[in-house]
Amino acid sequence: MTAASISVFGVKISGEFAKGDQVADRIHAACGDAGVTLRDDDVVVVTHKIVSKAEGRVAKMPSGDWEARDALIAREGATFLRRNGSIAITKTKHGFVCASAGIDASNVEPGTVTLLPRDPDRSARSIRSRLNHLAEADVAVVICDTFGRAWRNGQTNVAIGVAGMLPTVNYRDTTDSFGTVLKVTNIAIADELAGAAEMVMGKADGVPVAVIRGAPIRRGRGSAKELIRPATEDLFL
Amino acid sequence: MTAASISVFGVKISGEFAKGDQVADRIHAACGDAGVTLRDDDVVVVTHKIVSKAEGRVAKMPSGDWEARDALIAREGATFLRRNGSIAITKTKHGFVCASAGIDASNVEPGTVTLLPRDPDRSARSIRSRLNHLAEADVAVVICDTFGRAWRNGQTNVAIGVAGMLPTVNYRDTTDSFGTVLKVTNIAIADELAGAAEMVMGKADGVPVAVIRGAPIRRGRGSAKELIRPATEDLFL
Repeated sequence: MTAASISVFGVKISGEFAKGDQVADRIHAACGDAGVTLRDDDVVVVTHKIVSKAEGRVAKMPSGDWEARDALIAREGATFLRRNGSIAITKTKHGFVCASAGIDASNVEPGTVTLLPRDPDRSARSIRSRLNHLAEADVAVVICDTFGRAWRNGQTNVAIGVAGMLPTVNYRDTTDSFGTVLKVTNIAIADELAGAAEMVMGKADGVPVAVIRGAPIRRGRGSAKELIRPATEDLFL
Repeated sequence: MTAASISVFGVKISGEFAKGDQVADRIHAACGDAGVTLRDDDVVVVTHKIVSKAEGRVAKMPSGDWEARDALIAREGATFLRRNGSIAITKTKHGFVCASAGIDASNVEPGTVTLLPRDPDRSARSIRSRLNHLAEADVAVVICDTFGRAWRNGQTNVAIGVAGMLPTVNYRDTTDSFGTVLKVTNIAIADELAGAAEMVMGKADGVPVAVIRGAPIRRGRGSAKELIRPATEDLFL
């Protein structure tokens, strides 16, 4: 017998997203087309890109115009942490450390960029509420973006908004197979879910949503803000 | 139709691992017990813990004796990057940035700790070679550990050894749905696979292996060393 198994389904949504679009309604319809019937405890991972577009979080920026980009970063209320050539590592108003305040020129009309949602947790809660109503289920929602990391090459998808689940799973109170109390393990499961979703999303395929079934999430009123380490506790800022 | 789907199967292995154990043979037997028949392009994610034990990478260390731990970190050839109370962030001989050079007191006999494999890529290649022979398949292998990160709370599983696949998937050469050439996206898929595997492994359940089917890996002779950002390029060391 397998110990546990998790399924990750990619959900295509055809057509672009524009300001005012109902993200949850389109996700629900696309799940129907994909033959994925949402169930209790499913995690619906949504790329922030479609959320930003639906919320009108789009700005003009000529491709490769770093001055315009820096002005936009400042307008977004982000602070600059490090620069290296055209790369600007920033801390966003939300507290996320990422390149260019999350401003992104991919999968958007040339000459424009998407910005991060103003309050991705609120966006996640709103999508979840409507999706639960439409699907008659109790799902969790994670909104993700693709971030670089310190020390390691390559980017991974991480959670920037969370609803209906706790962003971490705490192994602190459990004992291991030798009875040793596990002291420090606090798994950022929302980030692992975002990373798993990335693998079915790809980057250019019109798959902005993944449904993950069987993950050991803990339900509750969680927030992606809990994933932000306070600057005073961070040894690498 | 779903766009793509990925399955993650947890594989229990009963009984402890000791020096000299054949990891691949036990994984193969456990897959059989679990009803998981390995197929070409499956990724077999293995927690480093059982690899370390099988390779005799275990040392004595009294629980909570930070002096003894620091001595062990130094003996392992790791360097200290930051300290905060009893926490020591280090760079291992391999180049990984993690707490305590990967020394770990969980799931091991009290009074002892596991060390990281000396060469996790080589361990991965060795496990893969034997597993492919036993299973008559062409799988990839990822050896993982649980690491903290800068800036974000919580830990995730990441790849410390890779065999039979490239650790990153490069979206640099592709175009998005607007025809914009994607410039910077280079996904650390080996880390996303390790993170997905963590969700079925848990921490205390005797599930040291996950089989991931359907992930968009690129086959080839890859190494987890490619995931290590050179210190000269790192803005946060």
